[in-house]
Amino acid sequence: MSVKMSHPDYSAQGWQQIVVSLDGPVAIVKLNRAKQRNSITIPVVRDLVAAYDILDRDDRVRVVVLTADHTAHAFCSGADLSSGWGGLFSEEDERQGRHTHRDSGGTVTLAIFRCRKLTIAAVNGHAAGVGITGLQLPCDFRFVWAGAKLAFPFVRRGIVPEAISTYLLPRLIGYSRAVGLLLSGGTYSPDSPLLQGLYHATFPNREDVLPAALAFARELAANTSQTGVAWTKALLWRGADSIEGQHILDSRGIADLASRGDAAEGAQAFKEHRAVRFSDVLSRDLSDFVPWWTELDVRQRKAKL
Amino acid sequence: MSVKMSHPDYSAQGWQQIVVSLDGPVAIVKLNRAKQRNSITIPVVRDLVAAYDILDRDDRVRVVVLTADHTAHAFCSGADLSSGWGGLFSEEDERQGRHTHRDSGGTVTLAIFRCRKLTIAAVNGHAAGVGITGLQLPCDFRFVWAGAKLAFPFVRRGIVPEAISTYLLPRLIGYSRAVGLLLSGGTYSPDSPLLQGLYHATFPNREDVLPAALAFARELAANTSQTGVAWTKALLWRGADSIEGQHILDSRGIADLASRGDAAEGAQAFKEHRAVRFSDVLSRDLSDFVPWWTELDVRQRKAKL
Amino acid sequence: MSVKMSHPDYSAQGWQQIVVSLDGPVAIVKLNRAKQRNSITIPVVRDLVAAYDILDRDDRVRVVVLTADHTAHAFCSGADLSSGWGGLFSEEDERQGRHTHRDSGGTVTLAIFRCRKLTIAAVNGHAAGVGITGLQLPCDFRFVWAGAKLAFPFVRRGIVPEAISTYLLPRLIGYSRAVGLLLSGGTYSPDSPLLQGLYHATFPNREDVLPAALAFARELAANTSQTGVAWTKALLWRGADSIEGQHILDSRGIADLASRGDAAEGAQAFKEHRAVRFSDVLSRDLSDFVPWWTELDVRQRKAKL
Repeated sequence: MSVKMSHPDYSAQGWQQIVVSLDGPVAIVKLNRAKQRNSITIPVVRDLVAAYDILDRDDRVRVVVLTADHTAHAFCSGADLSSGWGGLFSEEDERQGRHTHRDSGGTVTLAIFRCRKLTIAAVNGHAAGVGITGLQLPCDFRFVWAGAKLAFPFVRRGIVPEAISTYLLPRLIGYSRAVGLLLSGGTYSPDSPLLQGLYHATFPNREDVLPAALAFARELAANTSQTGVAWTKALLWRGADSIEGQHILDSRGIADLASRGDAAEGAQAFKEHRAVRFSDVLSRDLSDFVPWWTELDVRQRKAKL
Repeated sequence: MSVKMSHPDYSAQGWQQIVVSLDGPVAIVKLNRAKQRNSITIPVVRDLVAAYDILDRDDRVRVVVLTADHTAHAFCSGADLSSGWGGLFSEEDERQGRHTHRDSGGTVTLAIFRCRKLTIAAVNGHAAGVGITGLQLPCDFRFVWAGAKLAFPFVRRGIVPEAISTYLLPRLIGYSRAVGLLLSGGTYSPDSPLLQGLYHATFPNREDVLPAALAFARELAANTSQTGVAWTKALLWRGADSIEGQHILDSRGIADLASRGDAAEGAQAFKEHRAVRFSDVLSRDLSDFVPWWTELDVRQRKAKL
Repeated sequence: MSVKMSHPDYSAQGWQQIVVSLDGPVAIVKLNRAKQRNSITIPVVRDLVAAYDILDRDDRVRVVVLTADHTAHAFCSGADLSSGWGGLFSEEDERQGRHTHRDSGGTVTLAIFRCRKLTIAAVNGHAAGVGITGLQLPCDFRFVWAGAKLAFPFVRRGIVPEAISTYLLPRLIGYSRAVGLLLSGGTYSPDSPLLQGLYHATFPNREDVLPAALAFARELAANTSQTGVAWTKALLWRGADSIEGQHILDSRGIADLASRGDAAEGAQAFKEHRAVRFSDVLSRDLSDFVPWWTELDVRQRKAKL
């Protein structure tokens, strides 16, 4: 998708399943299917992927907060299974063969994961399945309601954990806890020992989660460098496979950023004991060295007419 | 080893070092050397490897629980060093050269690790060395007695942590804790901060560990899909080395499983608010796509006559 | 650098920025810039790299403790930014182009990381930036003062986390916590949930950190095998990329070490219920099989005259 607008109008994108709004440098992505427990359908996936793709490239945006209506029955009840598993597959899947299928939860995960801005999930209700794996795991920070029921039911439904959760969850909290969650197929509270380390902050009331996430987002937006954040996310997730290789990569990051405006401002503000005023933006100030990694083509192969 | 029986008789395998019994879909593997503190010898290793190899392929089995007599002096006191380190080496090792040796603890680890069923260690006593690294780390879930002394003495004996523990332990609980355990060579209680996240559940009395593990095993056996579990274990441990690669793999898992009986039953049971009755089995219903990974040949090289 | 002395005299190395002393098998490396809050400069880096390089090869040394004056304002306040970011770059950097720069914090990290002895950081004061990433993360054990302010300010200064921290921190404590620390850019206490698992021990008073670290170091030095430790560190950090490959590697470690003096002594002392007296040393008793891995050349490329 090509978005030429440098200042896209988020109310004019035609998204029905989500509502995206800008509060200065903080974007809020709100699931818009409260009556359907914010369950995930192909149209929801399409809107989320489109939104994170634009938010990634909109220089005004520094932090993206994903949330839901805290009065809804759930933050996200998982995939909509009202028409069984068949609802997961497209006409193109049936034409090309289901083995060419690309899991829709995984496309959401990739869209959030690839967003070079800070991403936060404000989980102000229960969540199940892709409501955890696709909406929460790829975010940088997760805020949660203490009363949330968090369900990982995959092996109890005869399928596998999807949305690339078998990649992300062991890396986020270690294999012991990830295996415990995914192979038990259980439902857990945020205070479960199995979930330790996954959530950045926990709140006793549903209505407090989003305001806290927004306050955190605003503070980060005001005080972090857009280029510094994008480089750091890339170093973390697209790093070298040896410590020596990573030394060469982060040296390159230091060399590049230290010569730019944000680093000069960072050092100056530090000296003057004042708040920073960063102005470097990704469209102009991100080194051509980024991206240094290669990515597999995950598009569905079309072999049949 | 080739086992043709589709319903093997576990009491007729000639194993002396362990006792294997079936309680419906739950298999219990019990160490049978209580008087020798269940220390590990070559014959114990041989029996364990043979048992997990068959349990992996017996369609009746959904969960395997490894345990010991809770009145024994130890769950497992580690390798039997009564004849020094020489006892670790076989005649073949001496003939081919010790550099061709294959660590026996590691063969146990691989046998449990490769078992495509759910695996649980019910650690109802003290454990040392391979009693942790070979018997516990490769299991999906670890249940433990709160009073257990857990010893990692390798560097204090002049050798290295074996049984592939330098691979598994950092992945299970992170490098910081794994390094702390393996390089201190210390003995720890299950409530040690260094062990946080390793054990799924802890029990104050030795005699309560196995019953709790069995109750957990029966619940899992009744409510999880054999094919879903096998796919999930493979995705977790044999995943792609990039997030995009893993997206392609788990998409394949979803596409395959969603078309099979267990997923249909899982969705139907969910709709009808009733318990599942899964019937897919590995010998018939596991996709030919599995295994997608390649494995190194770990057999000892024979170069001398 | 080539150091031919088998018993180097640490007081005669001409190091000004650090003081290195030997207490039997325990070496103490003390930062020597208390008045400058032990901030890191190019000369400090040069001395630290030289010291760990020698300590790695001095057979007398079994444990290295890195610390500072507990009455200093900080254990280490990070990079010295008194002349801005320019101070990070050398004349050679400017001549060859800053893209050939090698981050100096990373060279400290590599020097400590490559030291084959046990390494401990005794963090008896506040620490920021490279004072955490370069001085603490590469150590095997971290002891800390409970009152320490630990700052990860990189993205708030317009640069990236350096000293190979984007490699080490996610592996040490998992991606969820590492991302939380590095992308928030915040300052945390040792009891923060984000830091759980990173520190081996915490102490209420600054003056208690070093004595406790030294007591721990002496006990380890007396009771661990130098070759066993070196092999274990290599297996942990330079392991194979598959579980089968690691099985072959640790089998090799067992085969090699079981035939040597320390293992014989370890088994004998175990039988006789007495303390070990290990005497194997790296210069004589480490197998030629080590190192089995290859390392990237991280030296700065010189392309200009």
